[in-house]
Amino acid sequence: MIAAAVTNLDLHDIARAARTYGVRRYYVVTPLADQQTLVRRILAHWLTGAGAHHNPDRGAALEIIRLQDSLAGVLEHIRGRSGRRPLVVATSSRQHPGAAGFGRLRRLLQAENPCLLLFGTAWGLAPEIIQAADMVLAPINGCTEYNHLAVRSAAAIVLDRLVGPANARRGYAND
Amino acid sequence: MIAAAVTNLDLHDIARAARTYGVRRYYVVTPLADQQTLVRRILAHWLTGAGAHHNPDRGAALEIIRLQDSLAGVLEHIRGRSGRRPLVVATSSRQHPGAAGFGRLRRLLQAENPCLLLFGTAWGLAPEIIQAADMVLAPINGCTEYNHLAVRSAAAIVLDRLVGPANARRGYAND
Repeated sequence: MIAAAVTNLDLHDIARAARTYGVRRYYVVTPLADQQTLVRRILAHWLTGAGAHHNPDRGAALEIIRLQDSLAGVLEHIRGRSGRRPLVVATSSRQHPGAAGFGRLRRLLQAENPCLLLFGTAWGLAPEIIQAADMVLAPINGCTEYNHLAVRSAAAIVLDRLVGPANARRGYAND
Repeated sequence: MIAAAVTNLDLHDIARAARTYGVRRYYVVTPLADQQTLVRRILAHWLTGAGAHHNPDRGAALEIIRLQDSLAGVLEHIRGRSGRRPLVVATSSRQHPGAAGFGRLRRLLQAENPCLLLFGTAWGLAPEIIQAADMVLAPINGCTEYNHLAVRSAAAIVLDRLVGPANARRGYAND
């Protein structure tokens, strides 16, 4: 098993994107005690320490983070709050057989609630996690064969495609 | 004038997103000599140093970066390569009078070429830069009032909306 390091920027950037798109909780999952300590220290700084005073907007994003040591822990936490098992959707930079397109999941999300979107860092999600998910989301297709987005960028694009304004490509505002 | 610091992650994440969406050049603009030295050192590591061997995909993204000390320098560089002045589009997290929607710019980009998209870090682009642009793009609207995306996330979402697949919200692949 490979447990990827939690990076400070993953916490900040993904929390800010999640908060922007109305995501309720951002669970950071790591079994490593020293990584958990690091996450707690970062959160304490921004939620109650010097960072909270310096930049309250950052705290408003980071406060949606909950730390867990396993996916099972996340599912239990969600069930405890909502009384339901969420729809579990794995993301991947590779195409998986039977993967759902963004449009299909977008429509599902309007009915299905809660939903847990899984993102992996480093080498992506472990195969057993992908196997155990209810659904795998199609990879993000850009305009080239290059397929190495940062997980921070991928999470932002996925949220925008799934729950962002439906007409963002057609235009709005002064368009 | 405030010259924001160049951060390592802005270089990596935005170059990877730009490369994914077929952007030709990613110009990093800073007038500060020590920041320019930092950028050159990072690029040397990934393009010719240990990083090039360790992770060639990263080099394939970072090689589209060009360093300039002013917007005028960027425009001159583009004119030198293409013989044309690009359409200059400023981005902002605030709504500006007359700002273009994503759909309008998306259609324009199919005809207008080259185009230079401007992103600012820290407090955003300086007012005089926004004034001098040909067009200001509407801010990214999420699903909430929270409006503090990282510039790395904003750049990824903007590229996906402007040049990503037109049907990404309706679905494709197995959808």
